[in-house]
Amino acid sequence: HTSKLPNVGTTIFTVMSQLAAKENAINLSQGFPNFPSDPVLIEMVQQALRENYNQYAPMPGAMILREAIAEKMEYLYQRSYHPDTEIVVTAGATQAIFTIISAFVRPNDEVIIFTPAYDCYAPAVETHGGKVVPIQLQGKEFTVDWDEVRNSITSKTKMMIINTPHNPSGTVLSADDMLQLSKILENTNIILLSDEVYEHIIFDGAQHQSAALFPKLAERAFITASFGKTFHNTGWKMGYCVAPKPLMDEFKKVHQFNVFSVNHPMQIGVGTYLKNPENYLQLPAFFQEKRDFFLEAIKASRFTFTPSQGTYFQVLSYENITDEPDVEFAKRLTKEHKIASIPLSVFNTNNEDHKLLRFCFAKTEETLAKAADILNTI
Amino acid sequence: HTSKLPNVGTTIFTVMSQLAAKENAINLSQGFPNFPSDPVLIEMVQQALRENYNQYAPMPGAMILREAIAEKMEYLYQRSYHPDTEIVVTAGATQAIFTIISAFVRPNDEVIIFTPAYDCYAPAVETHGGKVVPIQLQGKEFTVDWDEVRNSITSKTKMMIINTPHNPSGTVLSADDMLQLSKILENTNIILLSDEVYEHIIFDGAQHQSAALFPKLAERAFITASFGKTFHNTGWKMGYCVAPKPLMDEFKKVHQFNVFSVNHPMQIGVGTYLKNPENYLQLPAFFQEKRDFFLEAIKASRFTFTPSQGTYFQVLSYENITDEPDVEFAKRLTKEHKIASIPLSVFNTNNEDHKLLRFCFAKTEETLAKAADILNTI
Ligand SMILES: CSCCC(=O)C(=O)O
Ligand SMILES: CSCCC(=O)C(=O)O
Repeated sequence: HTSKLPNVGTTIFTVMSQLAAKENAINLSQGFPNFPSDPVLIEMVQQALRENYNQYAPMPGAMILREAIAEKMEYLYQRSYHPDTEIVVTAGATQAIFTIISAFVRPNDEVIIFTPAYDCYAPAVETHGGKVVPIQLQGKEFTVDWDEVRNSITSKTKMMIINTPHNPSGTVLSADDMLQLSKILENTNIILLSDEVYEHIIFDGAQHQSAALFPKLAERAFITASFGKTFHNTGWKMGYCVAPKPLMDEFKKVHQFNVFSVNHPMQIGVGTYLKNPENYLQLPAFFQEKRDFFLEAIKASRFTFTPSQGTYFQVLSYENITDEPDVEFAKRLTKEHKIASIPLSVFNTNNEDHKLLRFCFAKTEETLAKAADILNTI
Repeated sequence: HTSKLPNVGTTIFTVMSQLAAKENAINLSQGFPNFPSDPVLIEMVQQALRENYNQYAPMPGAMILREAIAEKMEYLYQRSYHPDTEIVVTAGATQAIFTIISAFVRPNDEVIIFTPAYDCYAPAVETHGGKVVPIQLQGKEFTVDWDEVRNSITSKTKMMIINTPHNPSGTVLSADDMLQLSKILENTNIILLSDEVYEHIIFDGAQHQSAALFPKLAERAFITASFGKTFHNTGWKMGYCVAPKPLMDEFKKVHQFNVFSVNHPMQIGVGTYLKNPENYLQLPAFFQEKRDFFLEAIKASRFTFTPSQGTYFQVLSYENITDEPDVEFAKRLTKEHKIASIPLSVFNTNNEDHKLLRFCFAKTEETLAKAADILNTI
């Protein structure tokens, strides 16, 4: 059987995490926290298990969770999504993204993505016969050239995928970016997939510019979000997406035959927890403390950087240190210096190498201090 | 946006479960137990939560669970599947099925299914541009006409989907059926998707004829299984699939970008539980007691039946009662008599109506007795 995805190997996250485990290295590669989640949330899930929420959840999700999501969207972005028809809980944001693409992309449809791009977008498009149209983000600030975006649109453009705060770069789109995008999409039929899984991890007082805030974007947008990133439980594989009803109707047709529904006791626990806004309002400060701690600790190193604006990732440039290709350098750091990171080239069109590595700082201060000690010797 | 699935509405399981809830009817429609799962298993999951197995599981699944699956396949079907390369844990068997189809089916590929067919197969094929080739099972015993199968194969046949024990009919394939299938597929390149989610629910001392038992089938087969059906936790959305490495390599490419991985604490709990074969060896007797109780209780009713051979479903014929179309009759039973079932026509090619309803008997004896009391008055 010829492969539908001949160029896809094992995702870089698995490759680097496995190497880190084998080499007994500090693992700042794959993005996940190394501190425990809130015991209050853990207990809420345990209670749901004991109270026997153990049979199928409703297909779009447990009502308490859909209601909590609607309240959050209203509270943070002043936009109403109807729990019955415009919100679906998913087995992680990844499953939402795959299902959105599955529901809309046909052979030869074009999908615009911005590179460096999270590695699940392109294979999902290609699995459905679609064509990825990559646009490279520019310079050290990873800025978007909106004229290039406008010029990349053709009659075949079915979808555009944006991601803010942006993984892997740690940059965010500004209100002005979103308005420019709004104008570009205004008179098209293009679906916007806005991957906002790091919505609560944004720094220096900046506001997350959700597509939900911009009426001309929201009317065509799927917005995806992740409880794993938000509540420090990446292993629970729970996220959701919201969209206007006509788009969500098509999404549900595929969702119900992809996973049907999502882990029920987890949904009850997370729904109860999400009802209290304090549980997400504290996140920007919580993660900013980690970012600041890490950047302060490595300021004497030979790596250079622009501080991350959002996500729990910090990109470091090693152009002052060596000319090695970034994949090789990342592997050597893991093997010889016992610290694992993610090389950015794997997310770029044609694997363009800008001598950048991504480090995850969703870690305890103890781990971050140890990591900094290593980076300062390199 | 024109729909990729114009004929797909809401799945019959959601339709009937919602109607049952609204009408306060006994819900024997959607298949799920109404009794609690083993408290030992619930505690194992709680322990994993407390021990903080809360970050990403390995992409193919937690090792303890993959090992337990390998042991089970070896123990029950004397076939070795390598935990590293031939076993993947999925977010329910449905996600396994969708992902298998996504990994292999291209536009215009043909996929043979047997009708009445579980309702997730066809939309998954159509989402990927494939063409469903339905073969109708024959008579009250829902037998396969293997000559028809042989004649349905063309150069475009990419995949065949079988399901034993069979939902919705409650019939099973015999060893002879499997050998005939084996001969038909032998010199083809056709992938077999063997949906075996009810493998442990089989009656009257019959042996489940897994594709794993037949070398010429196993070499080309994905076998899917479900912990929800097995351990009475349909809401946990956990299943798995096994296949020879070359097939599984392609599966993983899509799986990692569909859901990436599956709920980690649940995997640890289920893996620990599955290590003890007693926990699945007791299931046939457990469910046979329920089937026998139900059939005994309705033997004086005007419904007629052939006893279910497997699954937790019993098909009842109402041809002696009324000429009403089965969808209407099922809805009227729910509204007027307060008992919900699944009409079989929705699973048939062209919705052929044979006056059959499917009742789920994975219920407490109290519920089954109440249901029988109602059925006996109709
Ligand atoms: C699904 S593993 C990757 C986790 C992640 O989001 C990242 O490291 O970017
Ligand atoms: C996914 S809801 C359907 C459950 C089931 O397997 C059935 O009732 O046949």
